[in-house]
Amino acid sequence: MTDTCIIGAGSSGVTVAKSLKDAGQTADIFEKGSQIGGMWRYENDNGQSSCYASLHIDTSRPNLGYSDFPIDPSLPDFLSHAQFLGHLEAYADHFGIPEMVRFNTAVTSVEPEGDRYRVTLDTGESRDYARVVIANGHLSDPRMPDFPGQFDGTAIHSHHYRSADPYIGKRVLVVGIGNSAVDIAVDLCRRAEHVTLSTRRSAWVMPKYLMGVPIDQWSGFLGRKLRLPTPAVRRIMAQLIKLGVGDQRRFGLPRPEHPMWREHATLSQELLPNIGHGYIDVKPNVKRLDGTRVAFVDGTDAPYDAIIYATGYNLTFPFLDRGVFDPDLQAGELYRRMVVPAHPGLIHAGLVQPVGPTIPLVETQGKWIAALASGRMTLPPRAEMDREITAHRDYQRRTYLDAPRYALEVDYKTYTRQMLADMKAGQAGT
Amino acid sequence: MTDTCIIGAGSSGVTVAKSLKDAGQTADIFEKGSQIGGMWRYENDNGQSSCYASLHIDTSRPNLGYSDFPIDPSLPDFLSHAQFLGHLEAYADHFGIPEMVRFNTAVTSVEPEGDRYRVTLDTGESRDYARVVIANGHLSDPRMPDFPGQFDGTAIHSHHYRSADPYIGKRVLVVGIGNSAVDIAVDLCRRAEHVTLSTRRSAWVMPKYLMGVPIDQWSGFLGRKLRLPTPAVRRIMAQLIKLGVGDQRRFGLPRPEHPMWREHATLSQELLPNIGHGYIDVKPNVKRLDGTRVAFVDGTDAPYDAIIYATGYNLTFPFLDRGVFDPDLQAGELYRRMVVPAHPGLIHAGLVQPVGPTIPLVETQGKWIAALASGRMTLPPRAEMDREITAHRDYQRRTYLDAPRYALEVDYKTYTRQMLADMKAGQAGT
Repeated sequence: MTDTCIIGAGSSGVTVAKSLKDAGQTADIFEKGSQIGGMWRYENDNGQSSCYASLHIDTSRPNLGYSDFPIDPSLPDFLSHAQFLGHLEAYADHFGIPEMVRFNTAVTSVEPEGDRYRVTLDTGESRDYARVVIANGHLSDPRMPDFPGQFDGTAIHSHHYRSADPYIGKRVLVVGIGNSAVDIAVDLCRRAEHVTLSTRRSAWVMPKYLMGVPIDQWSGFLGRKLRLPTPAVRRIMAQLIKLGVGDQRRFGLPRPEHPMWREHATLSQELLPNIGHGYIDVKPNVKRLDGTRVAFVDGTDAPYDAIIYATGYNLTFPFLDRGVFDPDLQAGELYRRMVVPAHPGLIHAGLVQPVGPTIPLVETQGKWIAALASGRMTLPPRAEMDREITAHRDYQRRTYLDAPRYALEVDYKTYTRQMLADMKAGQAGT
Repeated sequence: MTDTCIIGAGSSGVTVAKSLKDAGQTADIFEKGSQIGGMWRYENDNGQSSCYASLHIDTSRPNLGYSDFPIDPSLPDFLSHAQFLGHLEAYADHFGIPEMVRFNTAVTSVEPEGDRYRVTLDTGESRDYARVVIANGHLSDPRMPDFPGQFDGTAIHSHHYRSADPYIGKRVLVVGIGNSAVDIAVDLCRRAEHVTLSTRRSAWVMPKYLMGVPIDQWSGFLGRKLRLPTPAVRRIMAQLIKLGVGDQRRFGLPRPEHPMWREHATLSQELLPNIGHGYIDVKPNVKRLDGTRVAFVDGTDAPYDAIIYATGYNLTFPFLDRGVFDPDLQAGELYRRMVVPAHPGLIHAGLVQPVGPTIPLVETQGKWIAALASGRMTLPPRAEMDREITAHRDYQRRTYLDAPRYALEVDYKTYTRQMLADMKAGQAGT
């Protein structure tokens, strides 16, 4: 009997399914689009992918692969979306995942009924499962800022950005300082007339390479090979990054007020040099949209033809009633970043933003979920789950800025260790 | 009476004219095209410019300006060709240079007659001068390699490269590892299907920034502020560069067999990261062109749609008979890198490739030439000029690889000091 339903056949859904299969479990995967790959499929017909043509994954190859399915070592340090999709397809095919997927089928609602869940599809059909793995992704519902005034040019969210083609010779304002904002500004800047990056709070810029070696291999070396504790790794990395980047204020990019590790840094090899070549300039937050011009809070203003809002995403689970799970209030209130305590058969996969690589972390989540589904591991009682959540929230508040964005932040090493310990004990802990 | 003729109104001709004017001299400048700017004017109608759309000058702003006409400090670290041209135009206008230029007029021959020179124009007109300053540039006559076989795709020299537009979705082979080769490979690589860089001898890759500061400001700081001798500056810089770049072999780019300072390095912030993202790969020299494929000396071959030969330039002075000056034999045989010893009224300006900034070096050449023209400084006798040349060639052989390309190599600091000492003494020395 198939007792698990997985919503979404992106990288998270695929690896959860693979671990369930390894554990002798079956699962029904429902995928809105016609193929696997989720956000890694450019122009995915499920309409959910934010992938732009120049997107490369920012985890370097050796840290990226699945534990039993390594990535072809002839591929470059940083894979393009197409190369990563190729790897994911090979992985899925090798383990027979596509056969488990019902494509072109969206889940319209998931309703708890006792300790089971009624899953309704857009075909009208309903099915009943002991657990539902929610893996529909969290980077597809654009969050837009609410600036006063009216802009007469074209304005899109970065979700809809594909390439620089529509921006040739245009003056473009990119709002945001996250990885998408910076990636898009760099992608645009040689072909647009000019690019401005507007940032409210700035960010620490980290290079992708330090002394010719991908930065995640440095932290991996210090943390996993030398077994230094996370605070020591961070102190050393901060010094190395200063060596690589220098003082970002030279480039008009303010130093954030928060210390380097209190917020997700922005990874870009190319932002600062492109500022130094005059392709990109930096402005503070937008004060007002004014027809063909934009005014900034520093009192300056400038004309723009287009605005790209790289301002992040809302967490959206349209198939879940807010009474069952309200993402705005509860996204950070998941036991082990996965289980909804009030409905422990509702399990999120991939709803994390690790300092460290996401792909292998979600692989471990998949194994954890499979241990649960196969009965090799049990959940603690509700009170203990709540305690674990409170402790994690306290840790987050101590570690990161208390912004909504960081509800999903986890430390790769600590979190992996917790999941492995749970599985080893056969009993998830606090 | 106008006793000096200047051939070419590029950055060299303009600054020589300015210094002549400062010294109370007049000059006739003949410029083939309709405007000043030489190689810095994109699509210059004199047909001589190798400028591509994304070209930026690789000297950082503070090291670039003229001594009495600084560059607007609101401009970026590295100016685009258009920004530098704007600066050059402002400089020329400020000092009344355009009035000295006869535009749309090419010099067809320069013939020594006794100790004077007969200059013939493409109008058929001839004039007679005491000296001719040759400033027609040395980056406009493409040098092509002679590979066996036949290539069926499109092949151009980098001189004719303007932008990536014709290469969208194409497989492109760029031959060479100099600044143009690497600049063009980087410019192309996100829009082409794939780019291969083929290099015979490899090169040391230097970053444009070290710790967020332009690399030429580091060497300037060490050499000019701290007054360290050149060998010490180079040793320190080599260590800093290793810190910035790491081991370039990680990226498939062999370490050159020559030590770092024996050959002009290639300045690129972006080559290695683009290799690491799979946009560019590196191959050794071409063995054979084979229709739609190219075979390399390592035994591999691959299909290409286009080849761009960034293989340098021939030195060409079409208005000079080889009996008067043979660039292949005599380009390195110039007294103080300027004066043809057998015809001391033939004076080259800008025929140098400095380790250090070219623009201010040629400004000093202009002052030196003006001191000569105004009689404030005299040349030594022929035998002393020959001695100076021999000593310089010996120094070059000790310092650089003995390749034809390096006949023009000079050390910025030493050379500037020599010219200043000459002017101070009122007598050019050895």
